[in-house]
Order: sequence, then C-alpha cells, then structure tokens
Amino acid sequence: MEDVVIRTLEKVELRDPILIEGLPGVGNVGKLAADYLREQLKAKPLATIYSKFFPPQVYVSEEGIIRLVSNDLHYWKAPATAPRDILVLGGDYQGISPEGQYELTQRVLDYCHGLGVREVFTLAGFAQGRVVDSPRVLGAATSAGQVEEMKKHGVVFSRNDPGGGLIGASGLFLGLGRLFNMEGVCLMGETSGYFVDPRSAEAVLKVLAKVLRIEIDFTALEAKAHEVDRIAQKIHEAESRSGEATTATPSAPRDDLGYIG
Amino acid sequence: MEDVVIRTLEKVELRDPILIEGLPGVGNVGKLAADYLREQLKAKPLATIYSKFFPPQVYVSEEGIIRLVSNDLHYWKAPATAPRDILVLGGDYQGISPEGQYELTQRVLDYCHGLGVREVFTLAGFAQGRVVDSPRVLGAATSAGQVEEMKKHGVVFSRNDPGGGLIGASGLFLGLGRLFNMEGVCLMGETSGYFVDPRSAEAVLKVLAKVLRIEIDFTALEAKAHEVDRIAQKIHEAESRSGEATTATPSAPRDDLGYIG
Amino acid sequence: MEDVVIRTLEKVELRDPILIEGLPGVGNVGKLAADYLREQLKAKPLATIYSKFFPPQVYVSEEGIIRLVSNDLHYWKAPATAPRDILVLGGDYQGISPEGQYELTQRVLDYCHGLGVREVFTLAGFAQGRVVDSPRVLGAATSAGQVEEMKKHGVVFSRNDPGGGLIGASGLFLGLGRLFNMEGVCLMGETSGYFVDPRSAEAVLKVLAKVLRIEIDFTALEAKAHEVDRIAQKIHEAESRSGEATTATPSAPRDDLGYIG
Amino acid sequence: MEDVVIRTLEKVELRDPILIEGLPGVGNVGKLAADYLREQLKAKPLATIYSKFFPPQVYVSEEGIIRLVSNDLHYWKAPATAPRDILVLGGDYQGISPEGQYELTQRVLDYCHGLGVREVFTLAGFAQGRVVDSPRVLGAATSAGQVEEMKKHGVVFSRNDPGGGLIGASGLFLGLGRLFNMEGVCLMGETSGYFVDPRSAEAVLKVLAKVLRIEIDFTALEAKAHEVDRIAQKIHEAESRSGEATTATPSAPRDDLGYIG
Repeated sequence: MEDVVIRTLEKVELRDPILIEGLPGVGNVGKLAADYLREQLKAKPLATIYSKFFPPQVYVSEEGIIRLVSNDLHYWKAPATAPRDILVLGGDYQGISPEGQYELTQRVLDYCHGLGVREVFTLAGFAQGRVVDSPRVLGAATSAGQVEEMKKHGVVFSRNDPGGGLIGASGLFLGLGRLFNMEGVCLMGETSGYFVDPRSAEAVLKVLAKVLRIEIDFTALEAKAHEVDRIAQKIHEAESRSGEATTATPSAPRDDLGYIG
Repeated sequence: MEDVVIRTLEKVELRDPILIEGLPGVGNVGKLAADYLREQLKAKPLATIYSKFFPPQVYVSEEGIIRLVSNDLHYWKAPATAPRDILVLGGDYQGISPEGQYELTQRVLDYCHGLGVREVFTLAGFAQGRVVDSPRVLGAATSAGQVEEMKKHGVVFSRNDPGGGLIGASGLFLGLGRLFNMEGVCLMGETSGYFVDPRSAEAVLKVLAKVLRIEIDFTALEAKAHEVDRIAQKIHEAESRSGEATTATPSAPRDDLGYIG
Repeated sequence: MEDVVIRTLEKVELRDPILIEGLPGVGNVGKLAADYLREQLKAKPLATIYSKFFPPQVYVSEEGIIRLVSNDLHYWKAPATAPRDILVLGGDYQGISPEGQYELTQRVLDYCHGLGVREVFTLAGFAQGRVVDSPRVLGAATSAGQVEEMKKHGVVFSRNDPGGGLIGASGLFLGLGRLFNMEGVCLMGETSGYFVDPRSAEAVLKVLAKVLRIEIDFTALEAKAHEVDRIAQKIHEAESRSGEATTATPSAPRDDLGYIG
Repeated sequence: MEDVVIRTLEKVELRDPILIEGLPGVGNVGKLAADYLREQLKAKPLATIYSKFFPPQVYVSEEGIIRLVSNDLHYWKAPATAPRDILVLGGDYQGISPEGQYELTQRVLDYCHGLGVREVFTLAGFAQGRVVDSPRVLGAATSAGQVEEMKKHGVVFSRNDPGGGLIGASGLFLGLGRLFNMEGVCLMGETSGYFVDPRSAEAVLKVLAKVLRIEIDFTALEAKAHEVDRIAQKIHEAESRSGEATTATPSAPRDDLGYIG
C-alpha cells in the first residue's frame, strides 16, 4: 500500500490558488475555521486523502454507512472579479506519528504544488490556559513581507508567543512549504485550550476574509459559540453548587464539550 | 523481508466468493464466530499470512511443536445449488500498530480481490459495559442498499452506536475495501466486554447464516456458552461469599475467562 | 542505509552447518550458553551484523576503544571425524522493536541459508519466578521427529510450558526458519528470572553437547555460577540482617547481579 | 519524501576536512561547544538537513519568521599555514527514534565522506550526578593511536566511564563512521547533568583547540558560564530560605536553567 493515497475526484484548472489548512488541534480552532469556510464558500470536493498514518478507523453515519477516516481537499472558484481560487484542506485527523506528519504534509504539498499553489495559510488555536473573552489572532510567517502585510490586518506578532515554536500540521505546512518555494502564514486564534472554541475560529476567519477579500456570513458560527457558552455556564453553575470548583476556568478539558463542532 | 508474506497452499477457482473476516477483538466475538463457521463448513486451508506487523512470537502445541503466529484464509466450495463460495479469514492477531493494520488489511484485500472477492462481511463484538442476556446484532455497511438488506435479517442500525466509529480490522476491511470497489457489512454482536462471549458469536452467526443461506449446527457453540456461564456463575458466587462484589457484573475483565474460546 | 548490514569477515565453506542462536534474554541463559560455546570451541569470526533495529549505542572498552553494538556470527570447523560444522550467533541485543525482530531474524536466516544451514538450535531461559536448584531443560521444536530425538537427551516437553508461546529471537528463528525449510529446536533452561544464571546455561549446553556430539569443559562456567551464588548469598544475608527480606528469593531483579556474565 | 533531505547551500572544495559534531544532549555540552566553535571561526553555512526523524515542528523567531527544525553543516577554510579545514555539525535535535538516529547519522556521514572527511570528533557531556567544579574531559576513540594522542592533550580515559557505553549521536557518528573507514574521537565534558553547562563546553573546546591547533577566544563562553552560576546560586539561596533543600546539588533538572545556551 502506498503510505499516502490521494484520490482525485475532479480534474480542475485553478487560478493562482491559495491553500487554506485547518485540521484538528488545540481547541479545534483550525478545523472549525476551515470547515466553516468550506461550507460558506460551498467549496466542491477535489480529492480525498487516505493514509496508514491515520488511525485504522472508520466512522459510521446515522444511517449506518461507514466512511474511512481521511483528509479532504475542496476547491472554490473565485468569481471573475476576484484574483485567486481557494483550496481548503480539512479532515478527521493529523498524522498520528511524527514521521506520518512529515509524509502526509509533504505529499499534500506536492499535490497542491502540482495544482499551482504557491501560498499557504494554516489555521490553528493558541492555548492560553485561561478563559479568553476577546481572542486575538497571533501570527507566524515565512517572510518579513508577509509579517508586515498581516500586521495591517490586525494580526499580532508577539516576541515570546509561541515560545517553543509550532508543533504539528500548522507549522509543518509552512516549514516544508519552504522546500517547495511556497510562502505562508499561520493564523492562531487565542483559546483557553479547555474546549472547542468557535469564537476563536471566528476571529481567525475574520482576518482571513480580509486577507482573501471574501465575504463570510458568521451567523451560524456565532450560534455555535453561544451554544458552547451556554454549556460551559451550566457546568460552571453545577460545579459551584457542588463546591467542586469556584472559578470560571475549568481545571481540565471537558469531554462533554470536546465534540461540539 | 516482505512486510506481509502470503503463502498460497492451494490454487483454487472460486465462484463469486464472499470474504468473512473474524479476528481477535472485543469479547473475541469475531474470532469465535469465524472459527466456528470455518469448522462447521469444514473449510479448507487456502493461504497463510505472516507479517512483521504481528508480534515476534511462536505458539507451542501440547506436543511441543512450534507455529509462527499468523492469519489464515480458508475456503468453502458451495454446493452447485448455492450461489456463492466462502472465504474465511481468521488468525492469532490483528496488526499490532496502526500502520501494520493498514498494510495487512490492504494486502489481504488485494489478494482476495485477485480471487474474485467483491463483498466482505466483518464480524465483531460491541462492548456494552454490562451483562447482555440477549445480544442484539448491530450493523454498519458500505451502502444504503446493504443497510436495508441487513435490516430484513434483524440487524439493528442504531443512530448512536457505534458512536466513535469502528477501530481495527472489522472497520478497516470495509473502509479500505471501498478502494477496491468492494461492498461490505460489519455485524457486531452485543457483549459485556468483560470476557469471551460465545453467545454473542452465535447471534452474529445466526444472522450471517440467514444472509448466506447456509445451515449451521450451533450445538457446540452453545455448549461453550454454557461453560462460560458456569464459570462466570462460580466467580460470582465466590465473590459474593467473600464480600468482594455483590452484583452480577464483574467490575473488570477476568483473566480466567479470557482464554476460553 | 540498509536496515540490516551483514559484513562478512571471512569467506568459508562449511559442511552441513548447524546454527546455534543465543542472544540476551531471560536470565541471559541463551547468551551465556552461546558465548561459552563459542569460547570453548575457539570459533572464529565470520560476520558482523549491524542494524538500525539495535539501539543507537557504542560500547567503550577498558582501553577507551569504541565498538558499535552488533550481533556476530562465529564458525567452528568440525574435525574430519565429526559430521557437522557449527555457526554460533551471539551479540549485544535482540532487535528492539517487533518489526526489527522480524527483519533481523529474516536477514540472518537468509544469510545462513546461503551458507548451507538447514537446522537451527535456539538457546534461552525459561522464567519460573522462583529459585531453581536443578534446572531442567524444556524444549520446543519444529517437528515431531525432533521432539522424540530431544526427549532421548533428557529434554522435557511440558504440556503447559511455555503456555503463551515463545516471544523474541529464540522463537522467531524457528518460526521464520520454517519459511526457509529449516528444522529447529529451542532449548530453554529453567531459571528464576531474577538474575543471570550460568547454572541454567550449563544445563542447556550439556544437552546441546550431547546432541552435537562435542566435548565441553564446564570448569569456567561453573566458577561463574559459584560467583553468582556467592553474591546472591551475601545479598540474602544483608537483607535478612536488615529485616528487609527473609526468604531466599529476592523479590525483584538485582542490578548488581544483572551484568555478571 | 526522502527520509533525510540534505540541501547543499554552497559547493566547496575542502582540504582534508575534519568533522566536528555537537548536537543537543547531556547538559547541552556538545551543542554549546559546537555552536561556540562555529561562531568563533565564523564558519559559513554549507548544508541544511531536514528529516522526518526530527519532530514535526517549526521555530518562530522574535520577528515572527518560521524555520523548520534542522541540523546544519558549516565549514571553515583553514589559513594556508594550517593543515586542515573544519566542518561543524550542529542543530536543533538528534533523531527522535533509534532508527531515525541511525538513518540521520548514516546519511550525514555519507555526505561528509563525499566531501573528503576521514576523521570525526564528537562533543558531548558526561553526567556525573553531582556538581562538577573543574570538569575533566573524558574520551573514547576508534583506535589505540588516537587514545594515546588524546592523552597527550589531557583527555582522561577512565576504565569504568562511560560504563554502559555512549548512546546517541556522539557514539553513533564514531561507530557508524568505522563503516566508512573514518577514525574518530568522542570528547565528553564532565557535568552535573542538572542544567546546561557552558563551563564543561569550554573544557571540551580547550582540548579540541589544542588538537586542531586553532586559537579560540573564550570570553563570551565564560560570561555565559558566570550567568548560569549566578542563576544557580539564586535558586540555591531561595531553596535554602524556604527549607526545601540544603545542599548545593539540586535534586532534579531545573527548567529555568534548561534553555540558557
């Protein structure tokens, strides 16, 4: 078996396409943002990525139909007035071993390079370990020019964050992208790190929309954010009553919140 | 060394063969069912599968003869009146790493595809975490048509089970099977998850027998189920006397029951 | 880099050679026996085996000279009156991953097959979990004929031991050897499992000497056994005095005994 | 993706070059020494090494620019009066799996062999588990001749140290180097093992400077050593006050010291 299998579902010609990556990770911010973008753009399926570097797992739909875990590329053809088409990479998992991360990222970059991609935006969460009411969007980039460009859109480049660098797909797509002569930016929404965070995803997407000069309706994402708030509030109240905790910051990730999204 | 070595023991021509997979797993339900089917059909050895993705281990028989751990394919030629021949895949282990699971499944599917297999049934246990007196058979399938077909045979498709999908060979044979254009069904017998469960295996096999339109004598499997009941009862009584436990549900898997089968 | 590198040090023609394997393991019995056999036979170096499946480690001699960890093949030319030459496989480590075990064993077997090997003896310890005063030698073999032959030499074939089969090189050389049409026997010396056991190694070698019809002087091995006894006795006395333990069986492996050998 | 990618930045001809390796490890002694040597020699970048055997990680500079983790080769052209050019290997990580260690070392050695390297010096720390005021430099080498040569420069070859051999890149570059017919020496600076140790790095470099007959200004390295002393002293005082500890030896590695360097 090939280590990574990329099945092309449709042959398309793309105009100066930009790749947007958002896979599961901290607060699921990147995945929430990429999935929402894909839905709002009504992007179409382009390719499915299977790999032995994913868990040996299938998902079962409510109707009882199985589906092998995968990553997926969708494409969006920009209207004639807009400059660039968009590719969105999402999926169920990142590679589950360090070597798998490298192999998957390299294969997807190679495939996207063949489609004309020369620039990558990766979307992620940045865990602050405390509740974040108004999440800022932190950045990292492959060139000084992009850093300056991002600052214009309100992205924060902090001297100390992220201190230990970026681990996982969001960093690797930029780092390995350099070997394909791709430029790139990582947009990190601040988040507590305790549960999925649609509000942080919204902050990231708002920056991205400005950069890409596209319009996004955030109604559904905000509804999801309110739903998470509501559940978090309930948990907080229950804990206060039982005396288990008296602060607004849960001391550990909440399983009951972990899969909203 | 090849990662997976498949040794063909006999060249056979098969008529529209269906593959039945049953490897060790939850409650050993799948393995119990596949082994029992193989014995009842008096299926003949077709191929032995060795792999570095199995543990580096040999078993020693009571006579002192060693045997390298393996998976095995047996075949059954249906009588002229019946429509389809049967392949049964069983063995000592599933692959012990995620990558090994993928490699093994892909290689076996490729081999079976060469034998004409276009449909797969995988047999498994579904852990309920409590004693199950009358195990239902839950299902998952590759197409809506198969879901409907299975419902006719009493298979339950539950909106929420299995919630996190299927992990391991039973899911992967269906998920990767799709890449070979194979259709498939997973039949999961409800089981406690605490010990091997011949009764659950019987429930699964009864569905399979109806689907395959074959006759199976369940006398020996029921005897095994009674033996497990008897031992479980003894343990329960001993625990009640010693005050260690007072419920019918053991709180953890029992080693002394773990290898009946 | 090749996964396994076998460097031939001398080209030799061997007469119906038999391979004797003894690598580190339970009580270091196999390694002690193989190393002692090699020394007593004054076997000559034939090949060195390096591999990325060993730890990334070098040893440093008392003179400060480094040596990469390896396995090693030595050969012994039997006198004209004796029927068979001997190859001894020893070394610093078994492969440190399951896949590495398979790869190493397969490569060494392939190499030895090229030298004419058709029969393998593997030497190992069998942990009893209690002090064993007069270690028996347990056996496992690839054929009923060899089982009968070994029984004549006092080897014990126990219905229940080893219950879970053999894990590691001693089993794998026989199991994979079957794929090379090699016959083989595993000789397991009973041992406590708590420390290195030259006495168990002696028991194993005594059987092997009878099988191979060679003479071995056991003086040095017995001296080593007495040294281990002496240290074990001292520890026992110290523990008795301090009240830490009052039985002759240490409750855990002793580091201070672990590397005598 | 290739397992190891070596990007040559400049084509150079080198005169009998010697390879100096210093990667992260015990007390970061090897890395501190190699980095300092590279800076003092104003060595120029020759090649960058990326690999899936490193963590899937990028670092972010204070300016927000990302950089994929790597190892790096720098070269120094010796003045006409000096006999040999120098290559310095440094970087962010050693390979993170045993197999990765072998693959990386083998590939770098192969590359350096192509550049004419026939001799390797590896720099490392040797953990003593106690504060070391005047670190000695311990040695290990590939030949008796080099042992004698090193003794002339004050290197200590201790019968018992390092007892278990050397694990990691510093040993492997010598051990695998032998397969390329390279000679080599490992210089190990004594260190506590509790924090980064510029003073031990200085001891190692002083020996190396004598061997290579080069001049090194140690002012900056000594300043760094004083800084570490100062912080260690503060911690000690704080612990004494709080009664947590009353000895000069911290009982565990200090995170706040771990990344000075």
